[in-house]
Amino acid sequence: MPTVTRLTDPMFGSPAVLDIFSDAGTVQRMLAVEAALARAEAECGVIPAAAAMVISNVCRDLGVIDLDALAQSAVAAGNLAIPFVKQLTGAVAARDAEAARYVHWGATSQDIIDTALVLQLGEALPAIERELVALGDACATLAQRHRDTPMVARTWLQHALPTTFGCKAAGWLDALRRDLPRLAEVRAQARTLQFGGAAGTLASLGDQAPVVARALARELSLDLPLLPWHSHRDRLVAVAAALGMLTGTLGKIARDISLMMQTEIAEVAEPAGPGRGGSSTMPHKRNPVGCAAMLTASMRVPPLVATMLAGMVQEHERALGGWQAEWDTLPQIVALAAGSLRQAGEVIGGLQVDAARMRANLDLTRGLILGEAAMLALGDRIGRLQAHTLVEHASRRAVVQGTSLRDALAALLREDPAHAGLLDDAALDRLADPGNYAGQSAQFADAAVAAWREAVAGARD
Amino acid sequence: MPTVTRLTDPMFGSPAVLDIFSDAGTVQRMLAVEAALARAEAECGVIPAAAAMVISNVCRDLGVIDLDALAQSAVAAGNLAIPFVKQLTGAVAARDAEAARYVHWGATSQDIIDTALVLQLGEALPAIERELVALGDACATLAQRHRDTPMVARTWLQHALPTTFGCKAAGWLDALRRDLPRLAEVRAQARTLQFGGAAGTLASLGDQAPVVARALARELSLDLPLLPWHSHRDRLVAVAAALGMLTGTLGKIARDISLMMQTEIAEVAEPAGPGRGGSSTMPHKRNPVGCAAMLTASMRVPPLVATMLAGMVQEHERALGGWQAEWDTLPQIVALAAGSLRQAGEVIGGLQVDAARMRANLDLTRGLILGEAAMLALGDRIGRLQAHTLVEHASRRAVVQGTSLRDALAALLREDPAHAGLLDDAALDRLADPGNYAGQSAQFADAAVAAWREAVAGARD
Amino acid sequence: MPTVTRLTDPMFGSPAVLDIFSDAGTVQRMLAVEAALARAEAECGVIPAAAAMVISNVCRDLGVIDLDALAQSAVAAGNLAIPFVKQLTGAVAARDAEAARYVHWGATSQDIIDTALVLQLGEALPAIERELVALGDACATLAQRHRDTPMVARTWLQHALPTTFGCKAAGWLDALRRDLPRLAEVRAQARTLQFGGAAGTLASLGDQAPVVARALARELSLDLPLLPWHSHRDRLVAVAAALGMLTGTLGKIARDISLMMQTEIAEVAEPAGPGRGGSSTMPHKRNPVGCAAMLTASMRVPPLVATMLAGMVQEHERALGGWQAEWDTLPQIVALAAGSLRQAGEVIGGLQVDAARMRANLDLTRGLILGEAAMLALGDRIGRLQAHTLVEHASRRAVVQGTSLRDALAALLREDPAHAGLLDDAALDRLADPGNYAGQSAQFADAAVAAWREAVAGARD
Amino acid sequence: MPTVTRLTDPMFGSPAVLDIFSDAGTVQRMLAVEAALARAEAECGVIPAAAAMVISNVCRDLGVIDLDALAQSAVAAGNLAIPFVKQLTGAVAARDAEAARYVHWGATSQDIIDTALVLQLGEALPAIERELVALGDACATLAQRHRDTPMVARTWLQHALPTTFGCKAAGWLDALRRDLPRLAEVRAQARTLQFGGAAGTLASLGDQAPVVARALARELSLDLPLLPWHSHRDRLVAVAAALGMLTGTLGKIARDISLMMQTEIAEVAEPAGPGRGGSSTMPHKRNPVGCAAMLTASMRVPPLVATMLAGMVQEHERALGGWQAEWDTLPQIVALAAGSLRQAGEVIGGLQVDAARMRANLDLTRGLILGEAAMLALGDRIGRLQAHTLVEHASRRAVVQGTSLRDALAALLREDPAHAGLLDDAALDRLADPGNYAGQSAQFADAAVAAWREAVAGARD
Repeated sequence: MPTVTRLTDPMFGSPAVLDIFSDAGTVQRMLAVEAALARAEAECGVIPAAAAMVISNVCRDLGVIDLDALAQSAVAAGNLAIPFVKQLTGAVAARDAEAARYVHWGATSQDIIDTALVLQLGEALPAIERELVALGDACATLAQRHRDTPMVARTWLQHALPTTFGCKAAGWLDALRRDLPRLAEVRAQARTLQFGGAAGTLASLGDQAPVVARALARELSLDLPLLPWHSHRDRLVAVAAALGMLTGTLGKIARDISLMMQTEIAEVAEPAGPGRGGSSTMPHKRNPVGCAAMLTASMRVPPLVATMLAGMVQEHERALGGWQAEWDTLPQIVALAAGSLRQAGEVIGGLQVDAARMRANLDLTRGLILGEAAMLALGDRIGRLQAHTLVEHASRRAVVQGTSLRDALAALLREDPAHAGLLDDAALDRLADPGNYAGQSAQFADAAVAAWREAVAGARD
Repeated sequence: MPTVTRLTDPMFGSPAVLDIFSDAGTVQRMLAVEAALARAEAECGVIPAAAAMVISNVCRDLGVIDLDALAQSAVAAGNLAIPFVKQLTGAVAARDAEAARYVHWGATSQDIIDTALVLQLGEALPAIERELVALGDACATLAQRHRDTPMVARTWLQHALPTTFGCKAAGWLDALRRDLPRLAEVRAQARTLQFGGAAGTLASLGDQAPVVARALARELSLDLPLLPWHSHRDRLVAVAAALGMLTGTLGKIARDISLMMQTEIAEVAEPAGPGRGGSSTMPHKRNPVGCAAMLTASMRVPPLVATMLAGMVQEHERALGGWQAEWDTLPQIVALAAGSLRQAGEVIGGLQVDAARMRANLDLTRGLILGEAAMLALGDRIGRLQAHTLVEHASRRAVVQGTSLRDALAALLREDPAHAGLLDDAALDRLADPGNYAGQSAQFADAAVAAWREAVAGARD
Repeated sequence: MPTVTRLTDPMFGSPAVLDIFSDAGTVQRMLAVEAALARAEAECGVIPAAAAMVISNVCRDLGVIDLDALAQSAVAAGNLAIPFVKQLTGAVAARDAEAARYVHWGATSQDIIDTALVLQLGEALPAIERELVALGDACATLAQRHRDTPMVARTWLQHALPTTFGCKAAGWLDALRRDLPRLAEVRAQARTLQFGGAAGTLASLGDQAPVVARALARELSLDLPLLPWHSHRDRLVAVAAALGMLTGTLGKIARDISLMMQTEIAEVAEPAGPGRGGSSTMPHKRNPVGCAAMLTASMRVPPLVATMLAGMVQEHERALGGWQAEWDTLPQIVALAAGSLRQAGEVIGGLQVDAARMRANLDLTRGLILGEAAMLALGDRIGRLQAHTLVEHASRRAVVQGTSLRDALAALLREDPAHAGLLDDAALDRLADPGNYAGQSAQFADAAVAAWREAVAGARD
Repeated sequence: MPTVTRLTDPMFGSPAVLDIFSDAGTVQRMLAVEAALARAEAECGVIPAAAAMVISNVCRDLGVIDLDALAQSAVAAGNLAIPFVKQLTGAVAARDAEAARYVHWGATSQDIIDTALVLQLGEALPAIERELVALGDACATLAQRHRDTPMVARTWLQHALPTTFGCKAAGWLDALRRDLPRLAEVRAQARTLQFGGAAGTLASLGDQAPVVARALARELSLDLPLLPWHSHRDRLVAVAAALGMLTGTLGKIARDISLMMQTEIAEVAEPAGPGRGGSSTMPHKRNPVGCAAMLTASMRVPPLVATMLAGMVQEHERALGGWQAEWDTLPQIVALAAGSLRQAGEVIGGLQVDAARMRANLDLTRGLILGEAAMLALGDRIGRLQAHTLVEHASRRAVVQGTSLRDALAALLREDPAHAGLLDDAALDRLADPGNYAGQSAQFADAAVAAWREAVAGARD
């Protein structure tokens, strides 16, 4: 059975995560669960130790499962675990017929599929968190280095007032910082064993059920839940939602960067590289390919999170549709988030910043964005109302005459003897420097960087 | 780069469609587009005929493309076509260096990717329509065979009034009939060439652009649009929406069937088969695995359609995110719809109907669902108001005494001399037969079947 | 019970559509359905003509329904129609107790709610189509007026090649044109009577059911379906999907315009107006408020369409959740689409186009975007390979020296005697004029305008 | 301007929450923010104390704002705050022209809109948490009371094995318990002041910015963030996601209950009440109207969460679409979650449980669901393999002969002398009692109840 995603989705090659969720990666973890189950049951005297040893050994070899045959029979079974257990039982029987009788003892298909997924998340999420820390560090470097680099703040895609590039990067950084505890929290929630048997009661294990469950959780280093969660999926949905929020923040960063990379704006550029972002027909272009991937992920993940949420409405003790809808959806969410994060790491890590161009763009409105600053400066001397009238007048004149607000204001002041000496040339120059009206930008950058360092230090402890 | 969907989504093996959208299937159609482009340009004198012949020949051999290397380099390029053209150019150059210069002449990456997708849809949609016709035929057979098979109609999951199973199947059938013109319409819309060159103006082909475009459309048997649609994607979204509606109707059918298969209800059953729907631990069960797949598709597709709709907001002449978000999404929609349809074909084609059980379930409320019928029958004789009072009284008594409405009503009539002879035993028996209160069920079934036959005959002409 | 949308969503005031879907608008149409039902049944002799006249008269007066009380009791009933029928029956009884017995005769709640919705759509959709035609006309005017106005085409948010603004507007126009038949088609589908009685069999009307249904459809000028569609909702979902596609195209237009309005780009501007798009603190700004509304709609509608699609999975003869999920969702989709369309009409109708700025932006890369044109021009004389080398050389020199490609190329040609006379100054100037490399832009604009005129003429016939 | 939600969505009347998010509720909180801003600025000496007192007093009176006029002008402004500030300024000016100059000092529209929303959430979320605790308490009562009430566990909508109703309720309860910390966490995150001025730098407040911000946060009892979050929305999205998970769990509960309420199953019933769940035409029905509302919410909320997630991709310092898409979406999520919770409280609080019917349904398969138990019991005596063969044989015979597994097994044992005395009648009876094969059901119920009590006690501390 061929697949549909390899070439149709080339941008999300986060190799580590994709390996974990590959066919082989999935089956490997299913084998690990069956092996642990056998060992736990032997430990509790539920199955013979010898059988457990054979099962455990066979499960070490991924080769015992024929993936192609597995894919085929899973279609008819509507479920991966049934044909998997059949193949595994056959492989064990080939070594030891007696041991084969104890394969999958007391478990149900969903126990294996869910716990294998939990193991996959247990590896993928820490990898994602490590990449997030690296991204945040790169972002912190930007915020620090550019704490005082003036650039224009844009609202509604229009020039608003000055800010600094460090302040913008600090906004990104602080959002990434908030993802750290979210990811840690859902990772902790998701490390929960699924083990309930056919109906979630562990009836077939009789009185030994609790000790087997405990032993199995210990074998797999997972938490033991109060009761099975076959049709209560909130822990997995929480993972999806947290990755959705991460992907959203990465999409916001990509939106900002791709807008700043526009030919007319050109304030930053993604790092260049061989085969990266070139155009087949236009050699002068450098396409924001990393941003494109991040934006793509931020568009694709939200509806997938909706699928996970809608899938929570599951029937009785095992669902008809809601569970199955997760199978391909959660791995896609993980892969998209991880891929977006990898791209973000490259983009932010190698971002080329053109501070001169930022400064030049600030001047595009010839000081009109500094009207507020002028009003405040004059207000102290002549009252706010008069200051407001004066600056409005100057602004209009600057627009009409195509001069700067500074010059228009200077002319107005000169024309009216009442205003003589209000602002000398030095004061006017100070006013006209947008770097002097960036408010708390640098302080905000400092605060975000400090908080990041602390959060990461805390996480590393 | 491994993939994530083969085993995580075992239920959707619609082999034909998956082949079309496999890696190999995608590249094959990209080669077909490049070959057709070369031939069309040679025909118009834009490139040498000899070069076109070499290119066209090389493109016949899928082996000229190394899929693994392609997947790798697509990650960096952010785009499948750039490394594809590079590989293809290399393969052509190996035969004829001069010809290699004319590979991909005048086209842009998106021209190739989009047109290859259009070719894929041009094969997948007719396959889906054929399966839909087969499903509808099976549904029409059910509707016809069971036009008079009484069963209970259920509203809010509660028994309401009698209907017939044929009427229920007719509802399914009529919805499937409405999908026929929808699919035909979007198939027609989607068969549209994409050819605009780097900026959608075909500038590099100068005055020959229109004739080359026409020739290329002819070569590929596609429609020529008024202008390129690189960032206007409504035709593809229309395909997604139509498949979403089909998947929704299949989900409704699956919801009905899986509810009717419940152990307590047991009115129908999915066909049995080797390895199909068995439970690993409970041999007495027959799981509705086909319905599960159909329900899963009906949960997964709607958010994917939302992705396609949201992706329409594309920037200028080529998008940053919106286009790329389609790459994996539309094939998933097609695969899920096709897989759901295949499962529906098996479920409906082999559905086991237990008419006796339907009849038995009708009697569960001991005739209470026939109160309306009794009121109408009595109303003709004693006026509606008095009839209403009488039947209400009888209903309450039937509930309290655990008897049937028929017997409670008979007793009430006997008790009051004023009602003597109102309804004799034969009349009461007629009233108590739910088959006599199925309204237009059979006529509705007939109408839906006739309309289906006509629609299909029309489609086959 | 207060409501949540009036102020939280200020941007979507399409008054006509909102009136139709207001509380009063909904109840008015429910009254119209009940009145028509009474008349149809009297016509067929099912209820007394006198009763029908009283009912029909009472239904003319919206005041007979207490909307506040209705909202209250609907919460407990889980359904609007049950308390509505109760109030209506009371109002009729106050005039004529006998007539009151015939209110809602043979109908079920969903018949009234669905048919009232169908009437609402029957008014809202034509209003939307009229606004769409007006928008398209405005767009056609832009496409025509600017068929030759050169501007840069942008791919991946980077300068690519020249195009014309008329060509861009033609892309918008052609997408709007494709919405016309889609809307007409779903409007036709949606004009379908819902009338099935308690279980969709019309049993309570006995043999008169078909004639009553026909008469009712005629009374309301609606189509009579083959059978009731209480739990088959594809016709409504088709409306949602078509409006979703329209909203997506409007979002694309808004994305383009808002990007072109950026301070650095300034190629177009939304029309100014009192209280429109000003900033409370920055008087120099003109915010793209119309675009913001259109973009908002394009973000909100796709998930709502997903709700409609997911809601298709309805249980048996009346759903538990799927139907109810439509109640507020479809009106929101209609309101958002209509609101977005109204905003688009204002934005496009009054769009301020700065052709000089478009021209100036074209020159930002100093001709680098014309490398392809230069290669083609030289290729005719010295072969493509040599031309390619020469232009690449010139491009690199232009970047390094900060000169234009034209001047760099002229210098290179002068330096090498072999190239003497290849391109004289006039030829170089011609090459350097981006207006000469806009390919089929003007022709595309013409084609789209002609097709629009034809489509609209067809629609008006 | 009329509204669209009051009657179209009657099921979600959670009065407390709807009041908070009503038009009046929104404006009230905007007034509170402006009042607090004035007081904070006076406290820091930024504006005159007298002006602050006037502003603060005026803001106490909701009547100073004309809601209809506000709705009208918000359409043109694209934003609620601009016309709001205008009206407020007018109202203040009517009392004190000087004070009017200090209205909204240093703030931007989004500061007011966002902080008012934060205040709304700060009231709505605790109300939701209180209702959640009440619901969980009711659920704990069910789990405790029915810890030993046998019922059938159903997987894939088929009978699987016995469980207890207490165990099922414990599953619901434990999922609700996991919502407690999630809601507490997002409530804490959401209590964050928005205050950044026009560009998020607080430039207009100069050096006093930090102290004003601190004072304002204190005035409103909100947390002060490290920096403004105008275009970083993860805290609000986290609220949406947590409510989405809650709504999903409520949908799962409703799915279970509505399935158990089916006429054929009849194990539980929603509480009856005047005007609640009756059918207009079928007096014997009791519709699951509470479940319908809960299921509706569980279908509508996930796509709305997707809107919030997709909206995170916001442009620069203030978004174009992403922010505005939240305005109506987040209140809808809150209202739907609160409404679903209220319905759940009524349904669970008054749930009618028919233990006898649960027991009767368990017997529907005549003991076939106890095959596993029989195998285990026999396996101890004759080895698992032989036990398996024997039970399979008995199961087949029970199916064919329509007898119980118990009797079929007894007959088989009697027929074969080798099995004489294996299981006597008492042992067979014990086996045939499903209550003896409910595994850990009761223990799971106990554990979930204990954990709930502890969690709630912790939350109350």
